[in-house]
Amino acid sequence: MSEDESKATRSVRLAMKMIGTHIIKTAETVQDAKVDEMIDQILHAKKIFVMGAGRSGLVGRAFAMRLMHLDLPVFVVGETVTPAIEDGDVLITISGSGETKSVVELAMVGKQCGAKLISIVSNPSSSLAKVSDIVVEVKGRSKAEKIDYLERQVRGEHYTLAPLGTLFETTSLVFLDGVISELMKVTKRDETYLRLRHTSLE
Amino acid sequence: MSEDESKATRSVRLAMKMIGTHIIKTAETVQDAKVDEMIDQILHAKKIFVMGAGRSGLVGRAFAMRLMHLDLPVFVVGETVTPAIEDGDVLITISGSGETKSVVELAMVGKQCGAKLISIVSNPSSSLAKVSDIVVEVKGRSKAEKIDYLERQVRGEHYTLAPLGTLFETTSLVFLDGVISELMKVTKRDETYLRLRHTSLE
Amino acid sequence: MSEDESKATRSVRLAMKMIGTHIIKTAETVQDAKVDEMIDQILHAKKIFVMGAGRSGLVGRAFAMRLMHLDLPVFVVGETVTPAIEDGDVLITISGSGETKSVVELAMVGKQCGAKLISIVSNPSSSLAKVSDIVVEVKGRSKAEKIDYLERQVRGEHYTLAPLGTLFETTSLVFLDGVISELMKVTKRDETYLRLRHTSLE
Amino acid sequence: MSEDESKATRSVRLAMKMIGTHIIKTAETVQDAKVDEMIDQILHAKKIFVMGAGRSGLVGRAFAMRLMHLDLPVFVVGETVTPAIEDGDVLITISGSGETKSVVELAMVGKQCGAKLISIVSNPSSSLAKVSDIVVEVKGRSKAEKIDYLERQVRGEHYTLAPLGTLFETTSLVFLDGVISELMKVTKRDETYLRLRHTSLE
Repeated sequence: MSEDESKATRSVRLAMKMIGTHIIKTAETVQDAKVDEMIDQILHAKKIFVMGAGRSGLVGRAFAMRLMHLDLPVFVVGETVTPAIEDGDVLITISGSGETKSVVELAMVGKQCGAKLISIVSNPSSSLAKVSDIVVEVKGRSKAEKIDYLERQVRGEHYTLAPLGTLFETTSLVFLDGVISELMKVTKRDETYLRLRHTSLE
Repeated sequence: MSEDESKATRSVRLAMKMIGTHIIKTAETVQDAKVDEMIDQILHAKKIFVMGAGRSGLVGRAFAMRLMHLDLPVFVVGETVTPAIEDGDVLITISGSGETKSVVELAMVGKQCGAKLISIVSNPSSSLAKVSDIVVEVKGRSKAEKIDYLERQVRGEHYTLAPLGTLFETTSLVFLDGVISELMKVTKRDETYLRLRHTSLE
Repeated sequence: MSEDESKATRSVRLAMKMIGTHIIKTAETVQDAKVDEMIDQILHAKKIFVMGAGRSGLVGRAFAMRLMHLDLPVFVVGETVTPAIEDGDVLITISGSGETKSVVELAMVGKQCGAKLISIVSNPSSSLAKVSDIVVEVKGRSKAEKIDYLERQVRGEHYTLAPLGTLFETTSLVFLDGVISELMKVTKRDETYLRLRHTSLE
Repeated sequence: MSEDESKATRSVRLAMKMIGTHIIKTAETVQDAKVDEMIDQILHAKKIFVMGAGRSGLVGRAFAMRLMHLDLPVFVVGETVTPAIEDGDVLITISGSGETKSVVELAMVGKQCGAKLISIVSNPSSSLAKVSDIVVEVKGRSKAEKIDYLERQVRGEHYTLAPLGTLFETTSLVFLDGVISELMKVTKRDETYLRLRHTSLE
């Protein structure tokens, strides 16, 4: 780092490195069986639905956009052209806590309609995880980190490198981009294929 | 890596590590002056507008959500409650290529209305960058990587760890989370403060 | 009608007239006290939240956009910059059946957080209506009309002038535009005022 | 009207009746050939894209949702799963003025990609109308009404029954619901069919 690095830049760099490191570490914890099953479900689904609230919902949309580029039949819960979910469909939900009220509620509706439920969570003992067919755990903040943050706040420090669900959200996004990479390989669809599907109306 | 690592998991892990590494490397390239100016503009803006198309638009929304948690007056271009932009406002646009038609067009409208224009781009010589007051460069794929991809496709390989704008989008997201971290410090707003602003209707 | 009116045009005209007539008839059923209370709540709310699913959600957004043009502090549930709801806020929900799962669920969360709940429904004995502080009934299809539709379907006729919630949705939109008209009068904000707030980034 | 009708209710009723009357009057102006062509294009499109900004965009979404209920391959410009537009597709744009910058710009991109362009406008000599293959005129405010509003504002009156594009937007919504009614007839898809496609995840 340069000597004249501004204080602001210092925070930004620290946060970026911490998040990057978290992603690399989490890569090692990805569970084989879960990824294989998830990819299998996606490839054999009649329709794929993606759901999440807040920033987790944005992560879901980023994933859905790439599934569309791969020409898979994907829909985002809450958007205009999303049809009824039914037997043979797959519902992928993203929620760190696994306790977001509307997400858990609608996940159960999806199951009742016959869909397979895949959840991306940081809490594998959550309500969402419990009703899911496939649970993919993506680590967010560790308990040690949470305690560290709380102690800082007690001391009146405002400094937080990645507040709230940031680590879970970003790492989920990158994990799902990893799934896209594998799907490209399996479906033999390269970047040129994706680019041709990419919307031109923007 | 375990011996029985499935092939799918292998791709996912490789992609995650590659993206994580790219984020860490890019952290070093963040330019001091730009970050300082950007934070200064955000803190002194009458209103902040965030704009982007496709996945870059989702990155913008993720950033806007945290600005709202910090109680800053932020709006997303294209959403329902977004008012007119005017003198004293700041418009933050995210576009890897810096050439997305509607984004460049509306960025110029924003400038004409008197707003300061901050752009997050991977191409600092793009149309968007040229009309911006502050240009923050976030590296996406290098030219060497692009050539490598093209050669693979010529050879009929479909394997791509991070297709299209993936590297730019994820790295921008993490960079903007770094900016949030610094904003928390400067505004003395800690996680408890953010949590209280986090929507309960989800 | 001209003799050479095409069959398609005939359907379109019939549907438009039927819906127009329904709106005019429903105008007479608007209940004094409810409108007065609703306007009073909107004008005194700390923040206003608008919520609805599907086409009712779109009606809510159209209303929210005008409230923003009036410079009232309004947010749409599910959009990016929507903060926490709290004591002193008003939550306006739109649901014909008053039974949409996520809407009812989140309406109750809103109440628990201390917000006043206004619901626009066609079914005043619904779950949503029951938990609301102010219930505005906007008539959708009458029971007689519903029976008529069912009988047609039994006879194999596919002809429907306004399927599903169409009548409720359109009439709610027009009712809420009526509320906007009154709010303009009360707040002394004319069209020029609204136009100045209208987004220029589109 | 009852004697104890509140002043607020009076405005609301007046606005509703005025808008209802406008819809009925406009029904008579619907042009045969245009509706026939529009329905023909929709039924033979490879994919249908719907686009609009602000409240016109919401009207477009309400229409798109019903097209989806009819199982037609429809997408909303700006939403997540919207793919590239190409030869054989139809792009339906809604804009009262026909001059909304981003809408006109992207309409031209759509045409260049080989799509047929249908526009719903109140101004048939607008930029959007000029580049369209089919122009459907839906009357908004008449010139006489506009002059009346301006005179009121000069006199300091704030009273407006339907400000800005309200008449165009609502009438377009109802016109497009008329088109849905005709499409149900032609495709022999009744309400039960639509209900089965209606999303259950809400």
